[in-house]
Amino acid sequence: MDALLKDGERIDETGFGNLRLIQKPEDFCYGIDAVLLSTFAEIRKGARVVDLGTGTGIIPMILSHRTEAAEIVGVEVQQDSYERGMRNVQLNGLEDRVRLVHGDVKGLGLPRHSFDAALSNPPYVKGGGGLKNRESARTIARHETTAKLADFIGAAALLLKDRGDFYMVHRPNRLVDISVLCRHHKLEPKELRLVCPNRDTAPNILLIHCVKHGRPDLKFLDPLYVYEKDGGYTPEIMRLYERL
Amino acid sequence: MDALLKDGERIDETGFGNLRLIQKPEDFCYGIDAVLLSTFAEIRKGARVVDLGTGTGIIPMILSHRTEAAEIVGVEVQQDSYERGMRNVQLNGLEDRVRLVHGDVKGLGLPRHSFDAALSNPPYVKGGGGLKNRESARTIARHETTAKLADFIGAAALLLKDRGDFYMVHRPNRLVDISVLCRHHKLEPKELRLVCPNRDTAPNILLIHCVKHGRPDLKFLDPLYVYEKDGGYTPEIMRLYERL
Repeated sequence: MDALLKDGERIDETGFGNLRLIQKPEDFCYGIDAVLLSTFAEIRKGARVVDLGTGTGIIPMILSHRTEAAEIVGVEVQQDSYERGMRNVQLNGLEDRVRLVHGDVKGLGLPRHSFDAALSNPPYVKGGGGLKNRESARTIARHETTAKLADFIGAAALLLKDRGDFYMVHRPNRLVDISVLCRHHKLEPKELRLVCPNRDTAPNILLIHCVKHGRPDLKFLDPLYVYEKDGGYTPEIMRLYERL
Repeated sequence: MDALLKDGERIDETGFGNLRLIQKPEDFCYGIDAVLLSTFAEIRKGARVVDLGTGTGIIPMILSHRTEAAEIVGVEVQQDSYERGMRNVQLNGLEDRVRLVHGDVKGLGLPRHSFDAALSNPPYVKGGGGLKNRESARTIARHETTAKLADFIGAAALLLKDRGDFYMVHRPNRLVDISVLCRHHKLEPKELRLVCPNRDTAPNILLIHCVKHGRPDLKFLDPLYVYEKDGGYTPEIMRLYERL
């Protein structure tokens, strides 16, 4: 299998079933956000799912393990990440259910109104803000360099069937932007889950579930706490990572 | 003082300094929302403040006690509540700082762009939804019968100075509506505080602070918990009610 590895890469055991993942630590490694999002999404048996900004494919791969989705398409603009993602699919023998597409979320060639669910863990940092020293893989993954929040939401709206589900992970400080853009694109926010480092801190991650053409009415789900006071993970996080 | 009382009314000690309030329990009594909102708002010395949908004036009266605002104007559409509010101002000798105006928040005669802060505890239930058996004072106070959320937010935007503060209390399920309307009216949501019955329940009240022409960036404040596990109020609530 080592023939699948290139310079600076390693193979990580994800802990999700037998899933293994080729990562290049100096570029980008997947984080808790991808795990939270793949678990937050409720995917029905036989569903067609698209993950927008899939990186090296961690979300499609977790979904292939966790759900009975028929097909999971991951879209990634970065050549390196896409290509590493293709090797990940091969490494895990997932060619029949996971398909990766190299391209920008703007102007995708995928069939419109054809997906049951869309997910996205887009870059968090606004185009204008934050550090942006060079257009590295890490920078593109974290900053809105090639696509903005509006592009991800617009793409989801275009690809989803009527009543389709859109799941996104993002930062709480962008909630107003997210609300405005989702409603503009007829993806009505229906459920919001705030993720807090612990019980005494404000949230630093949000999970949002929108329904295409849904009726306006937002439900706040119970918050998710990551750490216990002693610094260990909470049981809910341990269950997400399948360590309990 | 009893000459100030009409049929079905009573005088309640509010616990806020010496403030007393004439209420008609069969119509409407003020609740925790008004207290939360008056405490959430940060009002500067000498500020001009307007409270949109003031009912019998509880918010202007608490602000007169808590803050050094120069003038607090309360606007109320219901004749009965407005008139009871006028007697409340008289009962507490607040004529020099609190002024009540009888009118709809739409098309107010107040000077535009002249207030430092605007507050609102508007009706929560959407025009189309909920019970609406008759247009009673209680119904108008709770349902969007005479004015909708958009009217309250639009009025605040019109009355506030540039960089003025808008504080509102509402229900979490309307957060998307609030976000969209506030941004549309250039009242940018800057701080959000969620109020939860206790540490194990989702929020049922939200407090939002917007700044006219503010930069988009929403901060989640620490949640406010109302009850302890034993059913008693938390210390923070006791402090809000000035019982600690």
